[in-house]
Amino acid sequence: MLYEAVYHEADSNYCFPISENEITLRLRVSNKDKFKKVKVIYGNKYDYYIKQNEIEMSLKYQTKLYDFYEVTIKLWDVRFVYIFSLEEEDKTYYYCEDGVMLKYDFNFAYFNCFQFPYINEVDVPKRIDWLKNRVFYEVFIDRFNLGNKDKDLSYINLKVDEIPKPTSFFGGDLKGITNKLNYFKELGINALYLTPIFKSISNHKYDISDYYNVDKQFGSKEDLKELITKAHELDIKIILDAVFNHCSDRIMQFQDVLKNGKKSKYFDWFIIHGDKVDQEKVNYEIFSICNYLPKFNTSNEEVKKYLIEIGKHYVKEFNIDGWRLDVADELSHDFWHDFRKEVKKINPNCLLVAENWHNSYPFLRGDQFDSIMNYSFTKAVLDYLALNNLDAKETAYQLNAILLRNNDIANDMMLNLLDTHDTDRFYTSCNKDIDLLICALSLQFMFKGNPGIYYGIEIPLEGGYDPDNRRPMNFNKISYDSSLYKMLKDLIKLRTTNDVLGYGDIFITSNDDLLIIDRSKNSRHLKLIINHSGRNKKISNTNIILCHNFSNNILKDKGFIIMEDEK
Amino acid sequence: MLYEAVYHEADSNYCFPISENEITLRLRVSNKDKFKKVKVIYGNKYDYYIKQNEIEMSLKYQTKLYDFYEVTIKLWDVRFVYIFSLEEEDKTYYYCEDGVMLKYDFNFAYFNCFQFPYINEVDVPKRIDWLKNRVFYEVFIDRFNLGNKDKDLSYINLKVDEIPKPTSFFGGDLKGITNKLNYFKELGINALYLTPIFKSISNHKYDISDYYNVDKQFGSKEDLKELITKAHELDIKIILDAVFNHCSDRIMQFQDVLKNGKKSKYFDWFIIHGDKVDQEKVNYEIFSICNYLPKFNTSNEEVKKYLIEIGKHYVKEFNIDGWRLDVADELSHDFWHDFRKEVKKINPNCLLVAENWHNSYPFLRGDQFDSIMNYSFTKAVLDYLALNNLDAKETAYQLNAILLRNNDIANDMMLNLLDTHDTDRFYTSCNKDIDLLICALSLQFMFKGNPGIYYGIEIPLEGGYDPDNRRPMNFNKISYDSSLYKMLKDLIKLRTTNDVLGYGDIFITSNDDLLIIDRSKNSRHLKLIINHSGRNKKISNTNIILCHNFSNNILKDKGFIIMEDEK
Repeated sequence: MLYEAVYHEADSNYCFPISENEITLRLRVSNKDKFKKVKVIYGNKYDYYIKQNEIEMSLKYQTKLYDFYEVTIKLWDVRFVYIFSLEEEDKTYYYCEDGVMLKYDFNFAYFNCFQFPYINEVDVPKRIDWLKNRVFYEVFIDRFNLGNKDKDLSYINLKVDEIPKPTSFFGGDLKGITNKLNYFKELGINALYLTPIFKSISNHKYDISDYYNVDKQFGSKEDLKELITKAHELDIKIILDAVFNHCSDRIMQFQDVLKNGKKSKYFDWFIIHGDKVDQEKVNYEIFSICNYLPKFNTSNEEVKKYLIEIGKHYVKEFNIDGWRLDVADELSHDFWHDFRKEVKKINPNCLLVAENWHNSYPFLRGDQFDSIMNYSFTKAVLDYLALNNLDAKETAYQLNAILLRNNDIANDMMLNLLDTHDTDRFYTSCNKDIDLLICALSLQFMFKGNPGIYYGIEIPLEGGYDPDNRRPMNFNKISYDSSLYKMLKDLIKLRTTNDVLGYGDIFITSNDDLLIIDRSKNSRHLKLIINHSGRNKKISNTNIILCHNFSNNILKDKGFIIMEDEK
Repeated sequence: MLYEAVYHEADSNYCFPISENEITLRLRVSNKDKFKKVKVIYGNKYDYYIKQNEIEMSLKYQTKLYDFYEVTIKLWDVRFVYIFSLEEEDKTYYYCEDGVMLKYDFNFAYFNCFQFPYINEVDVPKRIDWLKNRVFYEVFIDRFNLGNKDKDLSYINLKVDEIPKPTSFFGGDLKGITNKLNYFKELGINALYLTPIFKSISNHKYDISDYYNVDKQFGSKEDLKELITKAHELDIKIILDAVFNHCSDRIMQFQDVLKNGKKSKYFDWFIIHGDKVDQEKVNYEIFSICNYLPKFNTSNEEVKKYLIEIGKHYVKEFNIDGWRLDVADELSHDFWHDFRKEVKKINPNCLLVAENWHNSYPFLRGDQFDSIMNYSFTKAVLDYLALNNLDAKETAYQLNAILLRNNDIANDMMLNLLDTHDTDRFYTSCNKDIDLLICALSLQFMFKGNPGIYYGIEIPLEGGYDPDNRRPMNFNKISYDSSLYKMLKDLIKLRTTNDVLGYGDIFITSNDDLLIIDRSKNSRHLKLIINHSGRNKKISNTNIILCHNFSNNILKDKGFIIMEDEK
């Protein structure tokens, strides 16, 4: 046995409650080691030295270097302690807090067993029920659809087929989205993520100067209310974008600091190194390299309260269904902990999905965010289908590694993306290969979590990095008979109606250079097979419910099948 | 290189800020691999793809299987991203979120580098300044000293030299502790941890029936105030014991539930499976196997508030210096998060040290407890000196493994114990070998964190498991000329006055079956060498400041030296 590969940590992504009396355990070992049996030996903390139960773990995830065994245990007594046993033909290893050993003395277990000392209801991460069967559609508002033709249109300087510049305005607004609700309904979309709507001078409006007003270009508070009300009538959820890390330097508070320096009552609202702001030398904390985006000092309780009030306001007054939280990882854990508490008091089902590009386990324990924009998934799909950095086997390994970063509850709520306003469009990354785009969609829709598509993919729009990835939506260019549009619609229907995909289990493998994703609930299975091997593959045709580039039992390169199965 | 051994995780015990612009990183590799250089390649998130800095890591901890490299980086820009490079003679490996690779493309770093996105002041764990040079003494109150002879003494049924039973009462009280403050001062003790003082029918008083009153056996609120005031005059800190997991079934709230069942307004204060309490069937959550100790339902906001108010009350009204938190790991993270916030608002220097026997990283990130009762340290010392389960090398490995569980700030505040009212006395565990007890003390006093000694060790008292480990203190049996008493006093003086031991660095190794603990601050070093090899060892005698079983350059078995050094 490779001792160095063995890993487990209690109260972590290796050990988490999924209900008040159920706990899931994962154990990592080398994938070169083969065991006859891997078991959890567990009990109640207070009589563990005399009484132990056993349960077998099963091989659930395989990555490049490791095998991960997993089991979910139903407990009668939730004062839970445990160790692992790993059985080879001729010997048994025991693994506890002090490492791997060949014998274990339960009389000293109180010193070095693993433990999850008590499952407190309040610490159990919760799934949001309405999220179960949702497909998100990101609307970059300025580029989507002009609805209110009575507004001052003089700011508009971008035509539908032009390539945008950083300062382009196309004129999209909230009314334009409301006008397209039936379009979404027809496509099957049942959740919208809108980029920021608040007062701001830019087209993207990530530089907010007034959080309590809708930007005039986009409409009014009444327009927002109308959009949300009408969307809800069609069972379409609305998520707004909150930028709490920083604001525009035009915001009243920063302007006051610019004017009054240290005398301003808002001086401590920002993080200023010195006695007054110097915008040329940038002697204050900012977002990215933008001196016009001062960072809020959220260690200041007053600022924290101010921002949390905004978070509550739109949930309470406008009935929004969630927040997408911009640059969330640059704010403190302390902030998000309190933010969650206050917002969830108003609506426990308010979704909090953060823009964290990296491993975000410390935020995803159930006490801060529900989930994140899953850019690690994006990268894996790019590497597999667009960049050819990973083959099917390596992709399976990588997708498993991504799932293993977090508990199952967070994984069930991930927002899985192929592209957004912050990345190149996948269609451009894969060299405008519709087959690859369709395969990527099948993977996105069958993965654990919620698919989030970026406006225009149905055309598909192309585009490189910002601002090219923000070209105007052109409804006239949608070909409703195209394989892309039809497949997108079919996948949306499958994802929003098939119960197996709503918080169902996942098992990812590869075989003969095919990527295989098996989703299941109880005894029902949905299985996706993607071929990106460069060769045709023979597959016996049973219970196919969706496919691309598949006929006569042959799955062509850049094709996929989704099959239904009972086991 | 053994890929399977390589490990790092951002925002964890492998990556933590120690100030607003300093961050410490640890990297784990196999201890079989030798590298020419191990480096961090880091930068600012927003221009990392074009600009990287490098800093070398040094080998800081060695365990049975792994080497741990560490470095602390001072940052100018705290939007921190990084990867590692591991250089062998002929090649360089790069390690990022996606694993180990032979080349790394910084253009894609935004997808898979490690990051600590921003050091927010509020998330930086804080050391408590007064703790720096403290030695704790645990007083099990009933067994310590009778001070108030005017009280009703009829409950007393244990004489000074008798072995206690579970129902024994010796008569110790708060006045008895106040009367001994000069004794503590003379010994050098500058912090007391008192077992619970609140109303309760037992001798230990971990079954509290009224949190707002001092038990009559122990005295009055005035006695508590007098003790704290007089202790503070002598610069002795006082820590009380809080039992918030459970209470006595005699508490008003549980009695009300017993009487009124579901109609009681306190029904949801406990976790009851059914419509009324059945104390025979024990249909409610309890502590351990004790039906008379119902567990509080701290997921109930009302209960949470009630208990947090108690926590605040004694800090505010009695000026206590901290809480030792009983069975703290069975309460929720949510509870302790809020408890800390509220109590630290009143006194940011109020110490919160929890009774967690196991790896407690999720509680010790800086947002819940300051530290824990370090029973893993206890076990390592037992294994090395009393049970002969570990030799010097294995002990060094194990002590390093314990330190690696947490960040340096938590490690600096650990309460390191040889024994408590919940364990056998170390003196009994080591077969009453004074030399071994003295060696154990030297290790306890030189380890990172604060030593906590258990009353009676200065005699030394003996005792097996509860209640034998709670024998009466007998001041007449203290031999002030004994090597034990003198060494204890010398170690206390060293620990409370030598600045190197106050939050100084630690480096633990072994050599020739000697355990070596090097503590340092700036260029000053204090080095402990313990011999428990069974053989004499020759050591050149330089700058010895304390020693046991050492003369003529020979360190005997069961001996130690502490040397001072400038480097």
